[in-house]
Amino acid sequence: MAIITLTTDFGHKDHFVGAIKGTIYKELSDAKIVDISHSIAPFNIQECAYILKNSYKNFPDGSIHIVGVDSELTLENQHIAVLVDNHYFIMANNGVIGLIISEIVPEKVVEIQLPNTIDSSFPEMDVFVKAASHIARGGKLEVIGRPFKDLKDLREFNPRISDDGKTISGSVIYIDNYGNVVTNIQHNTFKSIGKGRPFELHARNKKIKEIHKKYSDIINYNLDKSQRKAPGELLALFNSSGYVEIAIYKSDLNTVGGASTLLGLDYRDTVIINFT
Amino acid sequence: MAIITLTTDFGHKDHFVGAIKGTIYKELSDAKIVDISHSIAPFNIQECAYILKNSYKNFPDGSIHIVGVDSELTLENQHIAVLVDNHYFIMANNGVIGLIISEIVPEKVVEIQLPNTIDSSFPEMDVFVKAASHIARGGKLEVIGRPFKDLKDLREFNPRISDDGKTISGSVIYIDNYGNVVTNIQHNTFKSIGKGRPFELHARNKKIKEIHKKYSDIINYNLDKSQRKAPGELLALFNSSGYVEIAIYKSDLNTVGGASTLLGLDYRDTVIINFT
Amino acid sequence: MAIITLTTDFGHKDHFVGAIKGTIYKELSDAKIVDISHSIAPFNIQECAYILKNSYKNFPDGSIHIVGVDSELTLENQHIAVLVDNHYFIMANNGVIGLIISEIVPEKVVEIQLPNTIDSSFPEMDVFVKAASHIARGGKLEVIGRPFKDLKDLREFNPRISDDGKTISGSVIYIDNYGNVVTNIQHNTFKSIGKGRPFELHARNKKIKEIHKKYSDIINYNLDKSQRKAPGELLALFNSSGYVEIAIYKSDLNTVGGASTLLGLDYRDTVIINFT
Repeated sequence: MAIITLTTDFGHKDHFVGAIKGTIYKELSDAKIVDISHSIAPFNIQECAYILKNSYKNFPDGSIHIVGVDSELTLENQHIAVLVDNHYFIMANNGVIGLIISEIVPEKVVEIQLPNTIDSSFPEMDVFVKAASHIARGGKLEVIGRPFKDLKDLREFNPRISDDGKTISGSVIYIDNYGNVVTNIQHNTFKSIGKGRPFELHARNKKIKEIHKKYSDIINYNLDKSQRKAPGELLALFNSSGYVEIAIYKSDLNTVGGASTLLGLDYRDTVIINFT
Repeated sequence: MAIITLTTDFGHKDHFVGAIKGTIYKELSDAKIVDISHSIAPFNIQECAYILKNSYKNFPDGSIHIVGVDSELTLENQHIAVLVDNHYFIMANNGVIGLIISEIVPEKVVEIQLPNTIDSSFPEMDVFVKAASHIARGGKLEVIGRPFKDLKDLREFNPRISDDGKTISGSVIYIDNYGNVVTNIQHNTFKSIGKGRPFELHARNKKIKEIHKKYSDIINYNLDKSQRKAPGELLALFNSSGYVEIAIYKSDLNTVGGASTLLGLDYRDTVIINFT
Repeated sequence: MAIITLTTDFGHKDHFVGAIKGTIYKELSDAKIVDISHSIAPFNIQECAYILKNSYKNFPDGSIHIVGVDSELTLENQHIAVLVDNHYFIMANNGVIGLIISEIVPEKVVEIQLPNTIDSSFPEMDVFVKAASHIARGGKLEVIGRPFKDLKDLREFNPRISDDGKTISGSVIYIDNYGNVVTNIQHNTFKSIGKGRPFELHARNKKIKEIHKKYSDIINYNLDKSQRKAPGELLALFNSSGYVEIAIYKSDLNTVGGASTLLGLDYRDTVIINFT
């Protein structure tokens, strides 16, 4: 039985998530339902895209991903089903898929058109579950919709490269549970532009000259504990998703603080890397 | 195997939810456990009733719903098991079931009396799981308790209708993840009292003359994007659960705000509909 | 199929939990994954230890518990797998297991050493899932690591007993979803030291002379409702995990407040029991 994942901005209190799961089990008694996140900031397409991109590929091929963010059907927000990278995505055409299809060409895209569905304010339950159930039973995308080409893009997600190839101008696209700040600068962009040159990363009034692979890389274990860098130290690393991240070693937003609060870095703020 | 759902005010940090799930798996190795909500405000019976009513019916018949809100056994807060609308509910007699049985007569109600259970501060694990496991194995309610008649009601949940049939006086019963304000005025009450007459909905100092079916109904897609209504616009709609809801289009409590904060509408506040 | 539980400080928004679950399903298509908590305060070993200790034993024997708190591999933070009390734990050697092994001698402890794993900032997915999958398939601990002896302890977790046996000096180790304050004084310590003598519990400027078994024990149901103690009343009880807890009857941090806020009791604050 295929896996069905849920990524929404429903939060954890309301009945919406429970209602969707119940509806899935009515259709597919042996479904395997997995929550990816229900804490996307309301209507935040970029956050949703980042979370979806970095989780979907860890699931087995054939998994079905329902996305419940900004899903109300309108003339400009069609319901779509996308097969890309051997995964199925059911969502509205609001740009969330943009981050995935910018790297991998989708195999099939259809605009969902199911008979006997109501046009409701809760399409995740009334429409998306039916589409997912059809796919989970081995049904084809062509049966639940017609071919669709006008997938919306995700604007402002890529960093800009200066003409002289000396500067990458990125921006903050995500702030994680630890207050760590994720930029839109990917490891392979950094490598292909930087070509091994020395560099300086600028975030607010801070300069960073090294990008690590692990948080604890800043600790020198040859030193006595009393002389080592401590929780609260600033660093940059390529995070486990391959993006440049500005972090605080062992940060806690409630105690030592996180990079976002300590540096005053928020969504869309600029982070620049200068190569010399 | 029957589905067992959990609706509690335990939150997401403590070990309580995990402990209950482990205990269920000890009893029923192939149980299907579904979280409905663990974020009910502590001891908030009304919130719990609203969430439970709007999620349970989406689950397959025969599902077992454990409710862990205000469950400590006392002389006046009996442990009960209720079969209603082909669903089983295991909970305390604190009024939560009131919203469901006000519309559908329960088939069976028993006061749970299990041998060898301890009278603890964690009855959800020590008592409710045993009752649920018994039912999941196909056992009858009569075996785990004796017939019970004194189900507590849920007070203050229904709107008042004026003698002249011109006014529905409702109140706020729920505020959702988007800050949208749900009233206790249901679609069928609105229709049967209003009989198609024009009306004015009053909430704080705002007047609303239309109740929509979808959030995006307020957008005129014939206009150029720059001239359309924008996120932050006030509207009323019959929400997906059939209640009158006062909402902010594409609200986000962290940015444009929600109806609750923008209008200053809180639990129990009055919302009035005048028909002319 | 064995159960795999997850206890982390990842929170509920980021993609980390989803990524781990997807990775588990890739390895074990019929895995039973259970979330214990993802809301441990970042890097808070004590909270994690308390939650893990009070939930693991409710799961069936043979369950596998992945702990994702402060897990980055360093020279001093080895990755370990522990078999104790018929449960498997996969975690870093950061002290979290200390609370369990202080009461039960572990059967086996290995330092995890898997071939072909990357040394990453996300070892829960890259290392712990592989170890858990090996165990779930019936594999032995010896195959995934070498015997290990230097398990770190959990400091400051036990209360101090005065030389004259008259005083237990404990401290706050956990604050739960209701704001109730859990101390490190266990029921059996209280009994063995107190030997039935009368006592006074001191927390901040409050004195308490009784420790109950249930929250509602403070209510006298023979009195008329108007004369009974009400929500907001202070009490102490042995909680369902066996620890002395200072609580507010029907507390809600958003309304009547909780013991932590009302008494100003925070983590590590002192709670004293004097026997006379």
